[in-house]
Amino acid sequence: MKELKQITVLGLGLLGGSISLSAMRALSGVRTVGYSHRASTREKARDYSVASEVADDSKESVRNADIVILATPILTFEQTFIEIADALPKGCIVTDVGSTKTLPHRWAAKRLPKDVFYVGSHPIAGSEKRGLEFSRDDLFDGAVCVLTTDKGSNKNAVNTLQQFWTKLGCKVLTMQPGEHDRIYARISHLPHIVAAALINANDEKLLKFAGKGFIDTSRIASGPENIWSDILMTNKSNIIKGIDRVIVELEKMKDALGQDDERKVNKLLTQARKRRETMINYKIDKKELI
Amino acid sequence: MKELKQITVLGLGLLGGSISLSAMRALSGVRTVGYSHRASTREKARDYSVASEVADDSKESVRNADIVILATPILTFEQTFIEIADALPKGCIVTDVGSTKTLPHRWAAKRLPKDVFYVGSHPIAGSEKRGLEFSRDDLFDGAVCVLTTDKGSNKNAVNTLQQFWTKLGCKVLTMQPGEHDRIYARISHLPHIVAAALINANDEKLLKFAGKGFIDTSRIASGPENIWSDILMTNKSNIIKGIDRVIVELEKMKDALGQDDERKVNKLLTQARKRRETMINYKIDKKELI
Repeated sequence: MKELKQITVLGLGLLGGSISLSAMRALSGVRTVGYSHRASTREKARDYSVASEVADDSKESVRNADIVILATPILTFEQTFIEIADALPKGCIVTDVGSTKTLPHRWAAKRLPKDVFYVGSHPIAGSEKRGLEFSRDDLFDGAVCVLTTDKGSNKNAVNTLQQFWTKLGCKVLTMQPGEHDRIYARISHLPHIVAAALINANDEKLLKFAGKGFIDTSRIASGPENIWSDILMTNKSNIIKGIDRVIVELEKMKDALGQDDERKVNKLLTQARKRRETMINYKIDKKELI
Repeated sequence: MKELKQITVLGLGLLGGSISLSAMRALSGVRTVGYSHRASTREKARDYSVASEVADDSKESVRNADIVILATPILTFEQTFIEIADALPKGCIVTDVGSTKTLPHRWAAKRLPKDVFYVGSHPIAGSEKRGLEFSRDDLFDGAVCVLTTDKGSNKNAVNTLQQFWTKLGCKVLTMQPGEHDRIYARISHLPHIVAAALINANDEKLLKFAGKGFIDTSRIASGPENIWSDILMTNKSNIIKGIDRVIVELEKMKDALGQDDERKVNKLLTQARKRRETMINYKIDKKELI
């Protein structure tokens, strides 16, 4: 692993704060530098000591970085790349923790200098909570982190990031950005939309009667809308296909009920239960249930 | 409260077992009698001591009961009413813990003798787990229990059941069966269908990539399909209306994405987040988050 002296984290929310805290815990001798465009967040970051240093300027924050990690909403990435491009040291690794990867790769190719190395990262960790104050130095323990690479990716940079996320507790997978976005449209972005639709289909008067089932099914819809609208907007076509698939399944259930077809209703429920069981067993087997 | 000496529970799954265990804990001097149509379940119930006595015959089990509680899948209720009708003592209270209430009321009116009193119960408690072995004597602590009554309901019987469920730890509400079924179609049956549709929309290869969000959003789809298909089949028209509402919301999101309308996407997510926040605050306020 390339010797790491400084990790810079741009964006100090739950994820950014947790990356810095985890790096300070897991990587001895590494300094972390944090930056947020909001003065109040920088102040809070100093109060909470989430980074070795909190910089007041994004360019200054990256000047001596071995790895720069963007942990802001996805639609800010291109502008950030433009902003920091001149200040990035030669050989520096740039990554981000956005939940979609096709556009970040495109922006990096267009906006970053040729002598720095971009690789996408997507640590599958987080919370419906938002903000620095929920940062944890164990947020990545046992989490999967997907690295995305394309034909231009630098192998050493990929290796270094692989080792970096592993040290933070992640199990690292590597795939292409397009494949990543197809998979996570279904497995992550779609559940968010479904949870939001379930809530929006019911008014507040009804929601008072919600039990644990409703509360769990809708949990992720409490996530921050600025982060999530960026995710959805940068993965539109995959998500639209996913929504269509869910509607097809809902129509199947509706038809089975409308036709009083108990066997069909039972079959749909059984299929879902068994498929979920397979998923949970796989997760237990791979120690991915944390 | 009418002096209770014997509670009979027909059906010894997670709910039936938990009712018996909770009654033994919370009501001093009360005997519980349990019955299951399966010999193997009766044997297990004796091994686990989930009831003061486990009867081998449903008629025998109710002969001295003050309250008889049906805790079997809903579509078995009518047959059970027919089966036990002659053996029920005069003045006995009959209830059930089914998740839909319109049909149970209809069957009770048709099948039970005039000198016993039927009231519907729906304790909002349970688990995606099934079976006697998951029974707990604190399953109802802090749970809401809806009693359903109609114009024929006996007031003393309603009062007794109200006190019974309160002693088991429930917060008791009373409503009419039709109102109950409209509300719970939306707040309980619909999330189940949505969770199942989300899983069925994705094949097993994709589900391997699921993170915590997907796992929580789909949790309730692991519930037993025999129980759930009965619930859905006995509340069809309300549920079909609910499915239509969810599809409308999914189409709204799909349109907003298709039209590249970030403001609209953000608005839908914000509405869901805020509405869920209101719900959670209400639940915290009412101490209903357990």
